[in-house]
Amino acid sequence: MQDKSRRVSIFDSTLRDGAQAEGISFSVLDKLKIVKALDDLCVDYVEAGNPGSNPKDLEFFHEVASLSLSHVKLVAFGATRRRDTDVADDANIRSLLSANTPAVAIFGKSWDFQVTDIIRTSLEENLAMIRDTVGFLVAHGKEVIFDAEHFFDGYADNPSYALKTVRTAAEAGAASIALCDTRGGAIPSFVADATRVVVDMLEVSHPQVIVGIHAHNDNSCADANSVMAVEAGARQVQGTLVGFGERCGNARLATIIPTLQLKMGFEVIGSEALSRLYLVSHSVAEIANVSIPHGTPYIGRSAFTHKGGMHIDGIAKNPKSFEHIDPETVGNERRLLMSEVAGRATILKRIQRYAPELGKDAPETQQIIDTLKLMEMNGYQFEGAESSFELVIAKHLGKHTPYFLLDHYRTLGEKPFVSDPNTSHTAVVKVAVDKQTAIAAAQGDGPVHALDKALRKVLEDFYPTLSTIHLTDYKVRVLDSQQASAAKVRVLIETTDGETSWSTVGVSTDIIEASWMALVDSIEYKLMREGVKPPADHTEGEY
Amino acid sequence: MQDKSRRVSIFDSTLRDGAQAEGISFSVLDKLKIVKALDDLCVDYVEAGNPGSNPKDLEFFHEVASLSLSHVKLVAFGATRRRDTDVADDANIRSLLSANTPAVAIFGKSWDFQVTDIIRTSLEENLAMIRDTVGFLVAHGKEVIFDAEHFFDGYADNPSYALKTVRTAAEAGAASIALCDTRGGAIPSFVADATRVVVDMLEVSHPQVIVGIHAHNDNSCADANSVMAVEAGARQVQGTLVGFGERCGNARLATIIPTLQLKMGFEVIGSEALSRLYLVSHSVAEIANVSIPHGTPYIGRSAFTHKGGMHIDGIAKNPKSFEHIDPETVGNERRLLMSEVAGRATILKRIQRYAPELGKDAPETQQIIDTLKLMEMNGYQFEGAESSFELVIAKHLGKHTPYFLLDHYRTLGEKPFVSDPNTSHTAVVKVAVDKQTAIAAAQGDGPVHALDKALRKVLEDFYPTLSTIHLTDYKVRVLDSQQASAAKVRVLIETTDGETSWSTVGVSTDIIEASWMALVDSIEYKLMREGVKPPADHTEGEY
Repeated sequence: MQDKSRRVSIFDSTLRDGAQAEGISFSVLDKLKIVKALDDLCVDYVEAGNPGSNPKDLEFFHEVASLSLSHVKLVAFGATRRRDTDVADDANIRSLLSANTPAVAIFGKSWDFQVTDIIRTSLEENLAMIRDTVGFLVAHGKEVIFDAEHFFDGYADNPSYALKTVRTAAEAGAASIALCDTRGGAIPSFVADATRVVVDMLEVSHPQVIVGIHAHNDNSCADANSVMAVEAGARQVQGTLVGFGERCGNARLATIIPTLQLKMGFEVIGSEALSRLYLVSHSVAEIANVSIPHGTPYIGRSAFTHKGGMHIDGIAKNPKSFEHIDPETVGNERRLLMSEVAGRATILKRIQRYAPELGKDAPETQQIIDTLKLMEMNGYQFEGAESSFELVIAKHLGKHTPYFLLDHYRTLGEKPFVSDPNTSHTAVVKVAVDKQTAIAAAQGDGPVHALDKALRKVLEDFYPTLSTIHLTDYKVRVLDSQQASAAKVRVLIETTDGETSWSTVGVSTDIIEASWMALVDSIEYKLMREGVKPPADHTEGEY
Repeated sequence: MQDKSRRVSIFDSTLRDGAQAEGISFSVLDKLKIVKALDDLCVDYVEAGNPGSNPKDLEFFHEVASLSLSHVKLVAFGATRRRDTDVADDANIRSLLSANTPAVAIFGKSWDFQVTDIIRTSLEENLAMIRDTVGFLVAHGKEVIFDAEHFFDGYADNPSYALKTVRTAAEAGAASIALCDTRGGAIPSFVADATRVVVDMLEVSHPQVIVGIHAHNDNSCADANSVMAVEAGARQVQGTLVGFGERCGNARLATIIPTLQLKMGFEVIGSEALSRLYLVSHSVAEIANVSIPHGTPYIGRSAFTHKGGMHIDGIAKNPKSFEHIDPETVGNERRLLMSEVAGRATILKRIQRYAPELGKDAPETQQIIDTLKLMEMNGYQFEGAESSFELVIAKHLGKHTPYFLLDHYRTLGEKPFVSDPNTSHTAVVKVAVDKQTAIAAAQGDGPVHALDKALRKVLEDFYPTLSTIHLTDYKVRVLDSQQASAAKVRVLIETTDGETSWSTVGVSTDIIEASWMALVDSIEYKLMREGVKPPADHTEGEY
């Protein structure tokens, strides 16, 4: 029978629909990281690409097979077969099989206008395309999710045809059918009513089929439409974790999951995973090199920030006066803009991960919190740079001595470049290690590349283990971009020694200095973690 | 009788609730500009400040009286009288009168918990506070809007008391009563049901009273809740034009008005005012020094932007295939992105915007398309850089001659910096203009800042108009971040001369060179657009 339990499954399409957003593009490595993050969040389905239209996606599906995932079921995405073609001869359908995923999502038209005017075939042939494609994939052992594209527009114009497409997919063996508001313009009450009709229809004819909702945000109602559809009996929500998607984006799972789970009593991802929502959402946004707007519900930095005096007063008397949920349930925190007590408990929790011995009232704890808060105010963000965070703590606890002291660095760029058009920059780095000084120079593509090479060159004689490391990722974020070229920038780098990798951060108005800070942290972290003994006479100072 | 016409009035609180948002603060001049902009949009009510809690607001109310407004009715905002006080002795209430506005909004508690635990008085005294305050202001000739604060939470916990507060305000003469979801956590179906109860109740006892909705976005449903409330009989929508507000913001009028007017057939601001929605929204955001996120429904830059090949194909056949409304109705426009998936037809359309004379088969057209596609393969993206796009076309058509030739530039960075810790970089730029050479040096925060200053300095003698321009935005994207510090970067800059602004792009493995390219395009574009004549002997070459 139709699943009337309180269990709602979550279907994330960040890697497919999300990649349709302006300015978003993912490398294969980005995609692997996002799958892992979504698995940590106990998401049920991850739609990861369209192997038919994008050959690069096949490479991804090959690589993702080696990840060990505990929750996520991977989904390949494609269209129904071409019109007037045998499904077994359709190259796109065959590439769906070769993606080798347990589940496949197939989209087909549910709006008669789309059939006649856009793909230009008959209404009957469109039904056959749905029937053949779903049936073929089911016969090949796939769990099939049918995306009824433009369902709500179709239901408004020609309800009986729209319902026929749904019934055809159910008859052909689809495990679930997602009702799509592809143009994103449907009104919530209409979505609720139409969803209820489908749920009731399938309850009679195909009670095992799950109804899903796939909403877009063009009228600013995607999240509400998703919630309304679940109230009307849908039990699968499709969207993208932080709302990336074509035009105005998809339904934003990070703001739907807590509403369903905390406020409406549905079983979604469980409370432990929910407490990671803030962290996972920001990680996924970082990978996409996008900031989550501060005002975003549940996961925005300002979502539980109180500014008005009356609100701060109310919160002090009882947080429920101006907070609809406890921010910790989603891993976020309360901030009071006129108060310095904000967020200490949260920071403490993170500090104790690295230094479990530190109590809440230890003077070191207070100092570390003050330092971190100051750094964050200056633009630091440690979410994607755990190793820099660990170094801040180690320095405060006297557990870290610098491995080298900077005498100076210089970078020189010029155009046209005299010797070689491909190495436009030269960097010189002079350091002191245990009273010995050394200087090295290197050339590279741009100032940071040259500086990175020169720094490792000058240190390798002192610390041979550094020869194993290299940078694997480099990201730049302009923080207050309206300050234009004098704006502060945050540089995040990821380094590997072939076995593990670690991330560090630097912030400055000078991109070269910010990069330098992140490079230094990366090297210091590697040496500290290996237990290399630092020179005894170095004290904490300028790097 | 209760207004069951299709007319919905719009109540904007950008200047009051909007100013509660993190990072927002308005000067008196800002506030005057915003009132004017909202008047252009034919908004009905503008809540402009709380003269009781903020003395600066009284200054504003004094000045605003001299604006000639054609639609807007100004509203002063305040609380019910203090507990156990005579209303005529309450200083806050008296300052409401001195604001001298035709309308006054009064908020009072509708949630029993707020009465007993936060303002700490009896339920009866709270009703008296509402009755006295509304009655006093009505007696002084004011149109009173009563904001039933926390109405929905109150209705959930103690419905009869919540309804009593509403009825008390109606009895005391309130013209309209706004049901507030102050914590922003109410579920749409609940908002609809509770609103309907109030509408039905007042229909019987006080049919002249208008019911309003005042929603906050903490569960991402503020816009949907507003729309649902109107469906349930509310006829006034309170919010802030672009959604500014405490925590996650208020209901966003710019995304509610078009839904009500275009999709649900309500009379709101009229079609002419609606066509100014994009412009007015962006002006208000500019005044607040905030960017409207690209994906914002209706008014975002990407709201009608199509990237996927199938979508672009559908749009070419019939725009309604992937657009829920015609973008021009709200003053926005369609954009077809030239990502790798975009076809030649899309590119051609964009070329013809700048050179309408170019046919599809002209040899120049083919050359331009080939150049653009090659540039895109190399990492260029013209989505946010229309001016660089225009320059590429002008160069191919022989319509553009360089305004200067680069002899060389040099940048020098060092740490520690000898002269001044705040200017870590020096740049030198030497150029030739019409056979004369000139050289200039400048210092800045980082290499790009120094280079930008030096370039403008050396050119201003030749082209004095350049003294009016400055950068307003600077963005860096590392393209293939796994190449780490040797990766390609794309730099996007936005420049203004105080009247208009334009965007340019540069790509290189060297961030300084990429920035240089974008800077050069920005300057060339400004001079070309102004019709400044370039030196005759310059030919297209290395800048």
